[in-house]
Amino acid sequence: MVYELYYWPGIQGRGEFVRLALEEAGAEYRDVAREKTGMPKLMRLLEDAGGMEPPFAPPFLKTGKLLIAQTANILFFLGGHHDLAPKNERGRLFVNQLQLTIADVVAEAHDVHHPVASSLYYKDQKREAKRAAQHFKAERIPKYLGYFDSVLEESGGPYLLGRRISYADLSLFQLAEGLRYAFPRAMERAEKKLPHICPLCERIAMRPRIADYLASDRRLDFNEDGIFRHYPELDG
Amino acid sequence: MVYELYYWPGIQGRGEFVRLALEEAGAEYRDVAREKTGMPKLMRLLEDAGGMEPPFAPPFLKTGKLLIAQTANILFFLGGHHDLAPKNERGRLFVNQLQLTIADVVAEAHDVHHPVASSLYYKDQKREAKRAAQHFKAERIPKYLGYFDSVLEESGGPYLLGRRISYADLSLFQLAEGLRYAFPRAMERAEKKLPHICPLCERIAMRPRIADYLASDRRLDFNEDGIFRHYPELDG
Repeated sequence: MVYELYYWPGIQGRGEFVRLALEEAGAEYRDVAREKTGMPKLMRLLEDAGGMEPPFAPPFLKTGKLLIAQTANILFFLGGHHDLAPKNERGRLFVNQLQLTIADVVAEAHDVHHPVASSLYYKDQKREAKRAAQHFKAERIPKYLGYFDSVLEESGGPYLLGRRISYADLSLFQLAEGLRYAFPRAMERAEKKLPHICPLCERIAMRPRIADYLASDRRLDFNEDGIFRHYPELDG
Repeated sequence: MVYELYYWPGIQGRGEFVRLALEEAGAEYRDVAREKTGMPKLMRLLEDAGGMEPPFAPPFLKTGKLLIAQTANILFFLGGHHDLAPKNERGRLFVNQLQLTIADVVAEAHDVHHPVASSLYYKDQKREAKRAAQHFKAERIPKYLGYFDSVLEESGGPYLLGRRISYADLSLFQLAEGLRYAFPRAMERAEKKLPHICPLCERIAMRPRIADYLASDRRLDFNEDGIFRHYPELDG
Protein backbone atom coordinates (compact mmCIF):
# COMPACT_ATOMS: atom_id res chain seq x y z
CA MET A 1 0.00 0.00 0.00
CA VAL A 2 1.44 3.38 -1.03
CA TYR A 3 0.61 6.11 1.48
CA GLU A 4 -0.76 9.39 0.21
CA LEU A 5 0.43 12.40 2.17
CA TYR A 6 -1.51 15.62 1.71
CA TYR A 7 0.15 18.84 2.76
CA TRP A 8 0.56 22.37 1.43
CA PRO A 9 3.28 22.36 -1.22
CA GLY A 10 6.24 24.71 -0.94
CA ILE A 11 6.82 24.50 2.80
CA GLN A 12 8.10 21.93 5.25
CA GLY A 13 5.50 22.95 7.84
CA ARG A 14 3.79 20.30 9.92
CA GLY A 15 3.94 17.91 6.98
CA GLU A 16 7.68 17.56 7.56
CA PHE A 17 7.20 15.67 10.83
CA VAL A 18 5.20 13.09 8.89
CA ARG A 19 7.69 12.99 6.00
CA LEU A 20 10.58 12.25 8.37
CA ALA A 21 8.71 9.30 9.86
CA LEU A 22 7.75 7.95 6.44
CA GLU A 23 11.34 8.28 5.24
CA GLU A 24 12.87 6.64 8.33
CA ALA A 25 10.35 3.81 7.99
CA GLY A 26 11.29 3.33 4.36
CA ALA A 27 7.60 3.54 3.55
CA GLU A 28 6.40 4.19 0.05
CA TYR A 29 4.45 7.41 -0.18
CA ARG A 30 3.28 10.07 -2.57
CA ASP A 31 3.50 13.70 -1.56
CA VAL A 32 0.28 14.36 -3.42
CA ALA A 33 -0.04 18.14 -3.33
CA ARG A 34 3.46 18.50 -4.79
CA GLU A 35 2.44 16.52 -7.85
CA LYS A 36 1.21 18.34 -10.92
CA THR A 37 -2.52 18.06 -10.29
CA GLY A 38 -2.22 17.50 -6.57
CA MET A 39 -3.59 20.69 -5.04
CA PRO A 40 -7.13 20.24 -6.39
CA LYS A 41 -7.06 16.72 -4.90
CA LEU A 42 -6.07 18.11 -1.51
CA MET A 43 -8.77 20.75 -1.64
CA ARG A 44 -11.38 18.23 -2.70
CA LEU A 45 -10.64 15.91 0.24
CA LEU A 46 -10.70 18.89 2.59
CA GLU A 47 -14.15 19.81 1.37
CA ASP A 48 -15.55 16.32 1.14
CA ALA A 49 -13.82 13.33 2.69
CA GLY A 50 -16.14 11.01 0.77
CA GLY A 51 -17.28 8.92 3.70
CA MET A 52 -13.89 8.87 5.40
CA GLU A 53 -13.16 10.84 8.57
CA PRO A 54 -13.06 14.55 7.66
CA PRO A 55 -9.85 16.47 8.46
CA PHE A 56 -9.91 20.04 9.75
CA ALA A 57 -6.64 20.92 8.01
CA PRO A 58 -3.54 19.41 6.37
CA PRO A 59 -1.45 17.39 6.94
CA PHE A 60 -3.52 14.29 6.41
CA LEU A 61 -2.53 10.80 5.36
CA LYS A 62 -4.59 8.45 3.26
CA THR A 63 -4.12 4.71 3.28
CA GLY A 64 -6.87 2.59 1.80
CA LYS A 65 -10.13 3.82 3.29
CA LEU A 66 -8.39 5.44 6.25
CA LEU A 67 -7.94 9.22 6.27
CA ILE A 68 -5.94 10.41 9.27
CA ALA A 69 -5.37 14.05 10.24
CA GLN A 70 -3.49 15.92 12.98
CA THR A 71 0.28 15.48 12.91
CA ALA A 72 0.62 13.72 16.27
CA ASN A 73 -2.24 11.41 15.37
CA ILE A 74 -0.70 10.47 12.02
CA LEU A 75 2.59 9.78 13.79
CA PHE A 76 0.85 7.68 16.42
CA PHE A 77 -0.53 5.57 13.59
CA LEU A 78 2.78 5.33 11.72
CA GLY A 79 4.73 4.64 14.92
CA GLY A 80 2.57 1.62 15.67
CA HIS A 81 2.75 0.20 12.14
CA HIS A 82 6.41 0.87 11.37
CA ASP A 83 8.16 0.12 14.62
CA LEU A 84 8.82 3.77 15.42
CA ALA A 85 7.24 3.50 18.88
CA PRO A 86 7.24 0.87 21.62
CA LYS A 87 4.54 -1.79 21.47
CA ASN A 88 3.58 -1.50 25.14
CA GLU A 89 1.02 1.03 26.35
CA ARG A 90 3.35 2.90 28.68
CA GLY A 91 5.93 3.46 25.97
CA ARG A 92 3.42 4.46 23.32
CA LEU A 93 1.78 6.94 25.67
CA PHE A 94 5.12 8.50 26.53
CA VAL A 95 6.11 8.91 22.88
CA ASN A 96 2.72 10.48 22.21
CA GLN A 97 3.19 12.78 25.21
CA LEU A 98 6.61 13.89 23.94
CA GLN A 99 5.18 14.45 20.46
CA LEU A 100 2.34 16.60 21.83
CA THR A 101 4.87 18.66 23.76
CA ILE A 102 6.86 19.14 20.56
CA ALA A 103 3.61 20.19 18.84
CA ASP A 104 3.14 22.83 21.53
CA VAL A 105 6.56 24.36 20.87
CA VAL A 106 5.95 24.25 17.13
CA ALA A 107 2.69 26.18 17.55
CA GLU A 108 4.42 28.74 19.78
CA ALA A 109 7.28 29.11 17.28
CA HIS A 110 4.71 29.86 14.59
CA ASP A 111 2.88 32.35 16.77
CA VAL A 112 6.08 34.35 17.33
CA HIS A 113 5.80 35.72 13.78
CA HIS A 114 2.00 35.65 13.83
CA PRO A 115 0.99 36.71 17.35
CA VAL A 116 -2.17 38.54 16.33
CA ALA A 117 -3.65 36.34 13.61
CA SER A 118 -2.61 33.71 11.10
CA SER A 119 -4.67 35.50 8.49
CA LEU A 120 -2.63 38.72 8.67
CA TYR A 121 0.72 39.25 6.97
CA TYR A 122 3.82 39.28 9.14
CA LYS A 123 4.43 42.93 8.24
CA ASP A 124 1.07 43.82 9.75
CA GLN A 125 1.99 42.35 13.14
CA LYS A 126 5.72 43.02 13.19
CA ARG A 127 5.67 45.16 16.29
CA GLU A 128 3.80 42.50 18.25
CA ALA A 129 6.11 39.83 16.82
CA LYS A 130 9.16 41.63 18.15
CA ARG A 131 7.75 41.58 21.66
CA ALA A 132 6.69 37.95 21.34
CA ALA A 133 10.12 36.89 20.05
CA GLN A 134 11.90 38.30 23.09
CA HIS A 135 9.82 36.16 25.45
CA PHE A 136 9.94 33.09 23.26
CA LYS A 137 13.73 33.17 23.08
CA ALA A 138 14.34 34.08 26.72
CA GLU A 139 11.73 31.84 28.35
CA ARG A 140 10.19 29.25 26.11
CA ILE A 141 13.13 27.88 24.11
CA PRO A 142 15.21 27.19 27.25
CA LYS A 143 12.24 25.72 29.11
CA TYR A 144 11.04 23.40 26.35
CA LEU A 145 14.44 22.31 25.07
CA GLY A 146 15.69 22.00 28.64
CA TYR A 147 12.88 19.53 29.23
CA PHE A 148 13.79 17.42 26.20
CA ASP A 149 17.47 17.60 27.14
CA SER A 150 16.67 16.25 30.61
CA VAL A 151 14.58 13.43 29.11
CA LEU A 152 17.60 12.50 26.96
CA GLU A 153 19.85 12.63 30.01
CA GLU A 154 17.55 10.40 32.06
CA SER A 155 17.04 7.87 29.27
CA GLY A 156 20.78 7.43 28.95
CA GLY A 157 20.46 8.25 25.24
CA PRO A 158 21.12 8.38 22.47
CA TYR A 159 17.34 8.61 21.94
CA LEU A 160 14.49 9.99 24.05
CA LEU A 161 13.50 6.50 25.12
CA GLY A 162 17.05 5.20 25.38
CA ARG A 163 18.53 2.84 22.84
CA ARG A 164 15.62 2.66 20.43
CA ILE A 165 14.57 5.41 18.10
CA SER A 166 10.97 6.65 18.03
CA TYR A 167 9.14 9.14 15.87
CA ALA A 168 9.49 11.72 18.65
CA ASP A 169 13.26 11.70 18.08
CA LEU A 170 12.73 12.55 14.42
CA SER A 171 10.39 15.36 15.42
CA LEU A 172 12.80 16.72 18.02
CA PHE A 173 15.46 16.80 15.30
CA GLN A 174 13.11 18.77 13.06
CA LEU A 175 12.19 21.14 15.90
CA ALA A 176 15.84 21.87 16.68
CA GLU A 177 16.64 22.35 12.98
CA GLY A 178 13.73 24.73 12.63
CA LEU A 179 14.63 26.76 15.68
CA ARG A 180 18.25 26.98 14.51
CA TYR A 181 17.06 28.28 11.16
CA ALA A 182 14.69 30.83 12.68
CA PHE A 183 16.77 32.00 15.64
CA PRO A 184 20.42 31.11 14.98
CA ARG A 185 21.78 33.53 17.55
CA ALA A 186 19.36 32.59 20.30
CA MET A 187 19.90 28.90 19.63
CA GLU A 188 23.68 29.23 19.74
CA ARG A 189 23.33 30.63 23.24
CA ALA A 190 20.66 28.11 24.29
CA GLU A 191 22.54 25.05 23.08
CA LYS A 192 25.43 25.72 25.43
CA LYS A 193 23.12 24.50 28.17
CA LEU A 194 21.69 21.61 26.17
CA PRO A 195 24.43 19.01 25.97
CA HIS A 196 22.19 16.16 24.77
CA ILE A 197 20.15 17.70 21.98
CA CYS A 198 22.94 18.38 19.45
CA PRO A 199 24.31 14.82 19.62
CA LEU A 200 20.79 13.48 19.08
CA CYS A 201 20.31 15.70 16.05
CA GLU A 202 23.65 14.70 14.54
CA ARG A 203 22.79 11.07 15.03
CA ILE A 204 19.39 11.46 13.35
CA ALA A 205 20.95 13.30 10.41
CA MET A 206 23.38 10.45 9.87
CA ARG A 207 20.83 7.66 9.83
CA PRO A 208 21.08 6.26 6.29
CA ARG A 209 17.50 6.85 5.18
CA ILE A 210 17.34 10.31 6.77
CA ALA A 211 20.72 11.32 5.31
CA ASP A 212 19.48 10.18 1.91
CA TYR A 213 16.26 12.13 2.35
CA LEU A 214 17.95 15.33 3.52
CA ALA A 215 20.21 15.26 0.46
CA SER A 216 17.30 14.66 -1.93
CA ASP A 217 14.99 17.16 -3.56
CA ARG A 218 12.13 15.65 -1.59
CA ARG A 219 13.43 17.75 1.35
CA LEU A 220 12.32 21.34 0.86
CA ASP A 221 14.39 24.20 2.27
CA PHE A 222 13.18 26.24 5.19
CA ASN A 223 11.64 29.48 3.98
CA GLU A 224 9.62 32.47 5.11
CA ASP A 225 6.26 30.91 4.26
CA GLY A 226 6.67 28.06 6.74
CA ILE A 227 6.42 27.66 10.49
CA PHE A 228 10.08 28.38 11.23
CA ARG A 229 10.97 31.72 9.63
CA HIS A 230 14.18 33.63 9.81
CA TYR A 231 13.50 37.31 10.28
CA PRO A 232 16.79 38.83 11.48
CA GLU A 233 14.94 41.48 13.48
CA LEU A 234 13.37 38.73 15.62
CA ASP A 235 16.73 37.12 16.40
CA GLY A 236 18.51 40.36 17.34
CA MET B 1 -7.24 1.91 41.75
CA VAL B 2 -7.94 5.55 42.58
CA TYR B 3 -6.62 7.91 39.92
CA GLU B 4 -4.60 10.93 41.02
CA LEU B 5 -5.16 14.00 38.89
CA TYR B 6 -2.60 16.78 39.19
CA TYR B 7 -3.58 20.21 37.95
CA TRP B 8 -3.25 23.82 39.07
CA PRO B 9 -5.89 24.51 41.71
CA GLY B 10 -8.32 27.40 41.31
CA ILE B 11 -8.95 27.10 37.57
CA GLN B 12 -10.73 24.71 35.25
CA GLY B 13 -8.00 25.04 32.63
CA ARG B 14 -6.88 21.99 30.70
CA GLY B 15 -7.51 19.83 33.76
CA GLU B 16 -11.23 20.22 33.18
CA PHE B 17 -11.18 18.11 30.03
CA VAL B 18 -9.74 15.28 32.11
CA ARG B 19 -12.18 15.85 34.99
CA LEU B 20 -15.18 15.59 32.66
CA ALA B 21 -13.95 12.22 31.33
CA LEU B 22 -13.27 10.89 34.83
CA GLU B 23 -16.70 12.03 35.98
CA GLU B 24 -18.54 10.56 32.99
CA ALA B 25 -16.65 7.30 33.49
CA GLY B 26 -17.67 7.23 37.15
CA ALA B 27 -13.98 6.73 37.95
CA GLU B 28 -12.67 7.30 41.44
CA TYR B 29 -10.08 10.08 41.50
CA ARG B 30 -8.40 12.56 43.74
CA ASP B 31 -7.89 16.11 42.53
CA VAL B 32 -4.59 16.19 44.35
CA ALA B 33 -3.50 19.82 44.08
CA ARG B 34 -6.84 20.96 45.48
CA GLU B 35 -6.23 19.00 48.66
CA LYS B 36 -4.63 20.71 51.62
CA THR B 37 -1.04 19.62 51.03
CA GLY B 38 -1.48 18.93 47.35
CA MET B 39 0.49 21.69 45.65
CA PRO B 40 3.89 20.60 47.02
CA LYS B 41 3.09 17.10 45.75
CA LEU B 42 2.38 18.46 42.28
CA MET B 43 5.58 20.51 42.28
CA ARG B 44 7.61 17.56 43.49
CA LEU B 45 6.39 15.29 40.69
CA LEU B 46 7.04 18.06 38.18
CA GLU B 47 10.63 18.33 39.35
CA ASP B 48 11.29 14.63 39.79
CA ALA B 49 8.97 11.98 38.42
CA GLY B 50 10.80 9.35 40.45
CA GLY B 51 11.46 6.89 37.65
CA MET B 52 8.11 7.46 35.95
CA GLU B 53 7.78 9.34 32.66
CA PRO B 54 8.45 13.04 33.36
CA PRO B 55 5.69 15.53 32.45
CA PHE B 56 6.47 18.94 30.96
CA ALA B 57 3.45 20.58 32.63
CA PRO B 58 0.12 19.81 34.33
CA PRO B 59 -2.33 18.23 33.88
CA PHE B 60 -0.93 14.79 34.57
CA LEU B 61 -2.61 11.67 35.79
CA LYS B 62 -1.06 9.05 38.04
CA THR B 63 -2.29 5.51 38.24
CA GLY B 64 -0.02 2.96 39.85
CA LYS B 65 3.43 3.42 38.31
CA LEU B 66 2.03 5.17 35.26
CA LEU B 67 2.35 8.95 35.02
CA ILE B 68 0.63 10.36 31.94
CA ALA B 69 0.80 13.98 30.77
CA GLN B 70 -0.67 16.05 27.92
CA THR B 71 -4.45 16.40 28.00
CA ALA B 72 -5.17 14.55 24.74
CA ASN B 73 -2.82 11.76 25.78
CA ILE B 74 -4.52 11.34 29.17
CA LEU B 75 -7.87 11.24 27.43
CA PHE B 76 -6.62 8.69 24.92
CA PHE B 77 -5.68 6.49 27.86
CA LEU B 78 -8.96 7.05 29.72
CA GLY B 79 -11.02 6.60 26.57
CA GLY B 80 -9.53 3.16 26.01
CA HIS B 81 -9.98 2.01 29.59
CA HIS B 82 -13.43 3.46 30.30
CA ASP B 83 -15.30 2.89 27.09
CA LEU B 84 -15.21 6.54 26.08
CA ALA B 85 -13.75 5.77 22.66
CA PRO B 86 -14.29 3.05 20.06
CA LYS B 87 -12.18 -0.07 20.38
CA ASN B 88 -11.21 -0.21 16.70
CA GLU B 89 -8.20 1.67 15.38
CA ARG B 90 -10.11 3.83 12.93
CA GLY B 91 -12.51 5.08 15.60
CA ARG B 92 -9.83 5.69 18.19
CA LEU B 93 -7.74 7.64 15.71
CA PHE B 94 -10.70 9.79 14.75
CA VAL B 95 -11.56 10.61 18.37
CA ASN B 96 -7.91 11.49 18.97
CA GLN B 97 -7.93 13.66 15.85
CA LEU B 98 -11.03 15.51 17.03
CA GLN B 99 -9.51 15.96 20.48
CA LEU B 100 -6.30 17.41 19.02
CA THR B 101 -8.35 19.84 16.96
CA ILE B 102 -10.19 20.89 20.12
CA ALA B 103 -6.79 21.34 21.80
CA ASP B 104 -5.80 23.68 18.97
CA VAL B 105 -8.84 25.92 19.53
CA VAL B 106 -8.24 25.89 23.28
CA ALA B 107 -4.67 27.09 22.77
CA GLU B 108 -5.85 29.81 20.41
CA ALA B 109 -8.56 30.91 22.86
CA HIS B 110 -5.87 31.27 25.52
CA ASP B 111 -3.59 33.21 23.22
CA VAL B 112 -6.30 35.78 22.54
CA HIS B 113 -5.74 37.27 26.00
CA HIS B 114 -2.02 36.41 25.99
CA PRO B 115 -0.86 37.04 22.42
CA VAL B 116 2.64 38.25 23.34
CA ALA B 117 3.66 35.96 26.21
CA SER B 118 2.11 33.72 28.83
CA SER B 119 4.50 35.20 31.36
CA LEU B 120 3.14 38.75 30.99
CA TYR B 121 -0.02 40.04 32.64
CA TYR B 122 -3.04 40.60 30.46
CA LYS B 123 -2.91 44.33 31.15
CA ASP B 124 0.57 44.42 29.61
CA GLN B 125 -0.65 42.99 26.30
CA LYS B 126 -4.15 44.39 26.18
CA ARG B 127 -3.69 46.32 22.96
CA GLU B 128 -2.40 43.23 21.19
CA ALA B 129 -5.21 41.16 22.74
CA LYS B 130 -7.85 43.48 21.28
CA ARG B 131 -6.49 42.95 17.79
CA ALA B 132 -6.20 39.19 18.33
CA ALA B 133 -9.77 38.93 19.65
CA GLN B 134 -11.23 40.49 16.51
CA HIS B 135 -9.65 37.87 14.30
CA PHE B 136 -10.37 35.00 16.65
CA LYS B 137 -14.07 35.86 16.80
CA ALA B 138 -14.51 36.68 13.12
CA GLU B 139 -12.43 33.89 11.63
CA ARG B 140 -11.42 31.15 14.02
CA ILE B 141 -14.59 30.52 16.06
CA PRO B 142 -16.76 30.11 12.95
CA LYS B 143 -14.16 27.97 11.19
CA TYR B 144 -13.45 25.60 14.09
CA LEU B 145 -16.99 25.30 15.39
CA GLY B 146 -18.30 25.05 11.85
CA TYR B 147 -16.05 22.03 11.41
CA PHE B 148 -17.38 20.32 14.54
CA ASP B 149 -20.93 21.19 13.57
CA SER B 150 -20.43 19.52 10.19
CA VAL B 151 -18.97 16.42 11.85
CA LEU B 152 -22.11 16.24 14.03
CA GLU B 153 -24.28 16.67 10.97
CA GLU B 154 -22.50 13.90 9.06
CA SER B 155 -22.51 11.48 11.98
CA GLY B 156 -26.26 11.84 12.30
CA GLY B 157 -25.77 12.76 15.95
CA PRO B 158 -26.36 13.19 18.74
CA TYR B 159 -22.60 12.67 19.25
CA LEU B 160 -19.54 13.32 17.10
CA LEU B 161 -19.29 9.64 16.24
CA GLY B 162 -23.03 9.07 16.02
CA ARG B 163 -24.94 7.21 18.68
CA ARG B 164 -22.11 6.56 21.11
CA ILE B 165 -20.52 9.19 23.28
CA SER B 166 -16.74 9.67 23.31
CA TYR B 167 -14.43 11.84 25.35
CA ALA B 168 -14.27 14.27 22.41
CA ASP B 169 -17.96 15.06 22.98
CA LEU B 170 -17.24 16.00 26.58
CA SER B 171 -14.39 18.20 25.44
CA LEU B 172 -16.49 19.87 22.75
CA PHE B 173 -19.07 20.64 25.45
CA GLN B 174 -16.33 22.23 27.60
CA LEU B 175 -14.97 24.19 24.64
CA ALA B 176 -18.40 25.60 23.80
CA GLU B 177 -19.07 26.44 27.46
CA GLY B 178 -15.73 28.20 27.71
CA LEU B 179 -16.21 30.20 24.54
CA ARG B 180 -19.71 31.21 25.67
CA TYR B 181 -18.26 32.42 28.95
CA ALA B 182 -15.43 34.35 27.31
CA PHE B 183 -17.23 35.75 24.28
CA PRO B 184 -20.99 35.66 24.96
CA ARG B 185 -21.86 38.17 22.26
CA ALA B 186 -19.67 36.61 19.59
CA MET B 187 -20.97 33.15 20.45
CA GLU B 188 -24.59 34.23 20.29
CA ARG B 189 -23.96 35.33 16.72
CA ALA B 190 -21.89 32.27 15.84
CA GLU B 191 -24.34 29.73 17.19
CA LYS B 192 -27.05 30.85 14.79
CA LYS B 193 -25.05 29.04 12.13
CA LEU B 194 -24.24 26.02 14.30
CA PRO B 195 -27.46 24.05 14.62
CA HIS B 196 -25.84 20.88 15.99
CA ILE B 197 -23.52 22.11 18.70
CA CYS B 198 -26.09 23.48 21.15
CA PRO B 199 -28.14 20.28 21.18
CA LEU B 200 -24.98 18.27 21.83
CA CYS B 201 -24.03 20.51 24.74
CA GLU B 202 -27.49 20.30 26.26
CA ARG B 203 -27.39 16.55 25.98
CA ILE B 204 -23.99 16.33 27.65
CA ALA B 205 -25.09 18.61 30.49
CA MET B 206 -28.07 16.32 31.16
CA ARG B 207 -26.13 13.09 31.37
CA PRO B 208 -26.65 11.96 34.97
CA ARG B 209 -23.02 11.89 36.08
CA ILE B 210 -22.16 15.14 34.31
CA ALA B 211 -25.26 16.89 35.70
CA ASP B 212 -24.26 15.71 39.17
CA TYR B 213 -20.71 16.93 38.64
CA LEU B 214 -21.72 20.34 37.28
CA ALA B 215 -23.93 20.91 40.34
CA SER B 216 -21.19 19.87 42.76
CA ASP B 217 -18.40 21.94 44.26
CA ARG B 218 -15.92 19.77 42.39
CA ARG B 219 -16.79 21.92 39.35
CA LEU B 220 -14.99 25.23 39.64
CA ASP B 221 -16.43 28.37 38.07
CA PHE B 222 -14.85 29.96 35.04
CA ASN B 223 -12.67 32.88 36.08
CA GLU B 224 -10.07 35.32 34.79
CA ASP B 225 -7.10 33.17 35.75
CA GLY B 226 -8.11 30.32 33.44
CA ILE B 227 -7.96 29.68 29.73
CA PHE B 228 -11.39 31.10 28.93
CA ARG B 229 -11.58 34.62 30.33
CA HIS B 230 -14.35 37.14 30.02
CA TYR B 231 -12.93 40.57 29.36
CA PRO B 232 -15.86 42.67 28.05
CA GLU B 233 -13.51 44.77 25.92
CA LEU B 234 -12.56 41.64 23.96
CA ASP B 235 -16.17 40.70 23.24
CA GLY B 236 -17.27 44.18 22.09
